[in-house]
Amino acid sequence: MQRYFIPEQDWNEDNVIVKGQDAHHLTRVMRKNIGDHIICNHTKGKAAICEIDKIEKEVVQLHVVEWLEENVELPISVTIAQGLPKGDKLELVLQKGTELGASAFIPFQSKRSVVNWDKRKSEKKIQRFKKIVKEASEQCHRNQIPDVFHPMSMKQLIEESKSADVKIYAYEEEARLEKFQSFSTIVKKLKKGQNMLVVIGPEGGFAREEAELFNKNGFIPVRLGPRILRTETAALYALASVSYQFEELGCL
Amino acid sequence: MQRYFIPEQDWNEDNVIVKGQDAHHLTRVMRKNIGDHIICNHTKGKAAICEIDKIEKEVVQLHVVEWLEENVELPISVTIAQGLPKGDKLELVLQKGTELGASAFIPFQSKRSVVNWDKRKSEKKIQRFKKIVKEASEQCHRNQIPDVFHPMSMKQLIEESKSADVKIYAYEEEARLEKFQSFSTIVKKLKKGQNMLVVIGPEGGFAREEAELFNKNGFIPVRLGPRILRTETAALYALASVSYQFEELGCL
Repeated sequence: MQRYFIPEQDWNEDNVIVKGQDAHHLTRVMRKNIGDHIICNHTKGKAAICEIDKIEKEVVQLHVVEWLEENVELPISVTIAQGLPKGDKLELVLQKGTELGASAFIPFQSKRSVVNWDKRKSEKKIQRFKKIVKEASEQCHRNQIPDVFHPMSMKQLIEESKSADVKIYAYEEEARLEKFQSFSTIVKKLKKGQNMLVVIGPEGGFAREEAELFNKNGFIPVRLGPRILRTETAALYALASVSYQFEELGCL
Repeated sequence: MQRYFIPEQDWNEDNVIVKGQDAHHLTRVMRKNIGDHIICNHTKGKAAICEIDKIEKEVVQLHVVEWLEENVELPISVTIAQGLPKGDKLELVLQKGTELGASAFIPFQSKRSVVNWDKRKSEKKIQRFKKIVKEASEQCHRNQIPDVFHPMSMKQLIEESKSADVKIYAYEEEARLEKFQSFSTIVKKLKKGQNMLVVIGPEGGFAREEAELFNKNGFIPVRLGPRILRTETAALYALASVSYQFEELGCL
């Protein structure tokens, strides 16, 4: 069943209105009509099967038929901080990372980022990123849409990291050492409801002084499997592993 | 250190020659010179640090300085059979799947595949796919290059599946059932050296009769986590999970 995230202000108890692009999608693209059912997600995580009561030019009115007791959110909140990569790799991380359950994304400017964030286009880009995660959330039936932060500096990222229960960074050098901090050791210790910050470098990885800064601020360097992953694959590996550990192995 | 896969015939005990595109890449792109070191991978999985002895127009001669005792191959051989997807999604699966350790890829024509394989362009496409997995193997320091098969029909895929120790298919309906076959239950039972065939449908998933055909032939339907993954994300989830189980948790 088609699924839409409806902003809080468009809910009135068991009545919902769908507006703008979603209304267009619902009536023109999906060709839904009065009496048809869709799933409406409340931004706070609830979802309900709703029936279309009325279709006007840019507003569709619905009422709740049945509240759903489903939850497909990762039991651990995983925030992906991604060193700004080249091309459209960030968009790949946003889309696939949403499918794999990330709760937020923080792009950040790292020493070896080849790309410089264009501040003039910032607002437009962030809007585009938010659209990607919203659509991915709808498509994969998430209960929540992940947050997308404005790009941060290393300093801002370190400041932001203080609210995380566990913070790790992928460090290529770790993957080459005989003795490394196993990612699974960290993941297995996580408790339901905790939040983990996973920091991934840009294409060239982290500079030594960045690694030192992370170490000084309580980040744990990890390897993500024995192969050297591309920057955009690393985040997906981390998320799939957390999902496998908690949603498939089911150890909580 | 830069890494190249050298075909068997270009090895002569401890002497190696690099030819063609790789020679061009080595001397022109990487600007390596006599006395410089690179890593040469034998197609059979061995690798050695080699020193450049001589550079001619299209041939570079090297000798082995040190054989490496490294192995970053997944202990389980995972073959990804991917229902032909739209656009360049197959290329994404090939590249990222190689990084995540897949040992082979089988594209196949499924009922709901929107794309039809253009047989006239087949050879050229397969060459392109092989180039993608070779480059990805070099980049992520694999010991082996995954195989890429010519696209198969469902019938051929079923025939091919007979050599697999374990065969599973991702079935969206499974993800919606309360009682489902847990992917981790299957993964945990795998033994080192076994091979698993993971079959992923195209965008629309599998038709019921395809699911029945799989069931009849000993395939196990699985869900890959609780969220509905896009076709190109499903293979990556499966591979990352196998890696996490055997290379991070380390249960063998």
